[in-house]
Amino acid sequence: MLNTRSLISKTPSASFEKGEMPLRAMAPDRVAISIKFSGICHSDIHQVRDEWSEGIFPMVPGHEIVGEVTEVGSAVTKFKVGDRVGVGTFVDSCGTCYPCKSGRENYCRTGNVQTYNGKHYDEEVTYGGYAQNIVVKEHFVLKVPTNIDFAASAPLLCAGVTVYEPLKHWKAGPGMKVAILGLGGLGHMAVQFAVAMGAETYVLGRSLNKAQDAKDMGALDYLITSEAMETHKDFFDIILNTTSADLDVDALLAMLLVGGSLVNVGLPGTDQSYNPFSLVTGLKSIAGANTGSIQGTQEMLDFCGEHNIVSIIEMVDATDPGAIDAAYERVVGSDVKYRFVIDAATI
Amino acid sequence: MLNTRSLISKTPSASFEKGEMPLRAMAPDRVAISIKFSGICHSDIHQVRDEWSEGIFPMVPGHEIVGEVTEVGSAVTKFKVGDRVGVGTFVDSCGTCYPCKSGRENYCRTGNVQTYNGKHYDEEVTYGGYAQNIVVKEHFVLKVPTNIDFAASAPLLCAGVTVYEPLKHWKAGPGMKVAILGLGGLGHMAVQFAVAMGAETYVLGRSLNKAQDAKDMGALDYLITSEAMETHKDFFDIILNTTSADLDVDALLAMLLVGGSLVNVGLPGTDQSYNPFSLVTGLKSIAGANTGSIQGTQEMLDFCGEHNIVSIIEMVDATDPGAIDAAYERVVGSDVKYRFVIDAATI
Repeated sequence: MLNTRSLISKTPSASFEKGEMPLRAMAPDRVAISIKFSGICHSDIHQVRDEWSEGIFPMVPGHEIVGEVTEVGSAVTKFKVGDRVGVGTFVDSCGTCYPCKSGRENYCRTGNVQTYNGKHYDEEVTYGGYAQNIVVKEHFVLKVPTNIDFAASAPLLCAGVTVYEPLKHWKAGPGMKVAILGLGGLGHMAVQFAVAMGAETYVLGRSLNKAQDAKDMGALDYLITSEAMETHKDFFDIILNTTSADLDVDALLAMLLVGGSLVNVGLPGTDQSYNPFSLVTGLKSIAGANTGSIQGTQEMLDFCGEHNIVSIIEMVDATDPGAIDAAYERVVGSDVKYRFVIDAATI
Repeated sequence: MLNTRSLISKTPSASFEKGEMPLRAMAPDRVAISIKFSGICHSDIHQVRDEWSEGIFPMVPGHEIVGEVTEVGSAVTKFKVGDRVGVGTFVDSCGTCYPCKSGRENYCRTGNVQTYNGKHYDEEVTYGGYAQNIVVKEHFVLKVPTNIDFAASAPLLCAGVTVYEPLKHWKAGPGMKVAILGLGGLGHMAVQFAVAMGAETYVLGRSLNKAQDAKDMGALDYLITSEAMETHKDFFDIILNTTSADLDVDALLAMLLVGGSLVNVGLPGTDQSYNPFSLVTGLKSIAGANTGSIQGTQEMLDFCGEHNIVSIIEMVDATDPGAIDAAYERVVGSDVKYRFVIDAATI
């Protein structure tokens, strides 16, 4: 078995270290990728710190991966050596359940194979993108447009599609008023997508310090959420919640127009409550979505190529692996504009 | 001002009495109707007992009204004397807000005029269908098909459209699996509609004593809700909640397929809670809807004419007005199959 240089978290409380970790073997339907850049997602931190469920350690996080193809299996038809490619949050799915059959592998009922902190169907543990190489089944590899910044395209693979797919599903577009709640890693992608889709786009946030950024991304206005709950009742078709804070669900529902939807992609850790009248009195919905399908991710990447959309990033030099720990602290403190990306050459 | 014989609740704790109550004056755009039958809706009981907000007493409830046109104003074009007509839950709306302009008067932002226990925009109090006559603005009067049972069509005006419109909005039809939660006044209409729309229709209930009825209405199966939460996970496209009981929202969401919706038309009196993961992991929604538009109500009545759908009713003879109080007790105890209808000739 081949190994690859990786940034490794050996236990939930450990700092990152560098080392060699096993690389999945090649096979006829697999693609070998030299990783160039890897985004840091907030969910990496939850998993490295064992805040969700019991993680598999040592762990190599990372599911916002871009790189170049270095080898293709004999049955691979979509890719050739040298192609710019990406890998997102999962690297396999059962292929037989009804969501898989209808191209919604992100909702695989068997449980798809997470890019890291998971197990392949053959029980081999998965290691993610904070590394120099990865081997992935062709179907789960995406084509990354060559006209957009390569490093800044890494976060598209999770943050990007996580907001793109629900915006498409709930039909953001011309004539629609869309509010993006929270301007972080997910939110700053959502604003760019909603604007490019032609929606009248607003940002809801806690303080005005990102107001100019929001407008630079094409938002019509940046509103303080608590104030907008008074001034913008009955106003939006869609509120896309990208935060993981507890919500005043009824106050947000009151900001929706008749037929509007409060769509959650951020995940508060606790139960949320609502007054049934808040839904019934306006044909309203509380909904949620989780990442994106392979087809949806490719569509999103192509859309980014057409509209020249990428993430706004801050590059992390991992020469000292402590830089990852430091970046994590800043992510937790919402102190990044707007996504960290690790330069794999420094691993 | 003319009067009309009515069943009157003088205070929230009083029994019904008979008496004369004011009839709205005729005007060029109004239609005078001789009421023939009037359904008893659970919301009548909440309002007569002052359980929602402070009611206007004396009160004449009733918003499931069918009758015959006895006079039309000079500007009326849709109706003539002798026509079979119906009146539902509201008798006017502002006509200028965005829902009114788009034909969703049931979500009028100014506040539409409730058929009873409300006030017209000129401050005149509204009195409802437990009476022998009513005068209503033409736009809010519906045509009732002549090929369906007249008395059994009264409940269509509220119970019928309340479930018809959300079933249409969430696209119940061939290839869709629809569960109707609760087989009461609303539920028994919903089952008939979902079946006629071509959906695979199921009923979820607390006990099996209505199982045969559900199948007679065309349901594929009647399931005990608590058991179905185990046996029918990941199964339904739509669950339409017609009950006002507190819900195990997460367990119901788990019964939905990817992309499914839990649609509430019944109203629990307290806040409900959900785990955000229940939504996110399956692109699911919790939604709500309130009665129907005028256009939707007419469409529903026409659909009933085409498919020969009516309510299953128990007739109430109001010769002794105590019969209404007795019927209310039975509604509260869920002891009616499936809707009481007052014979206006006995008022």
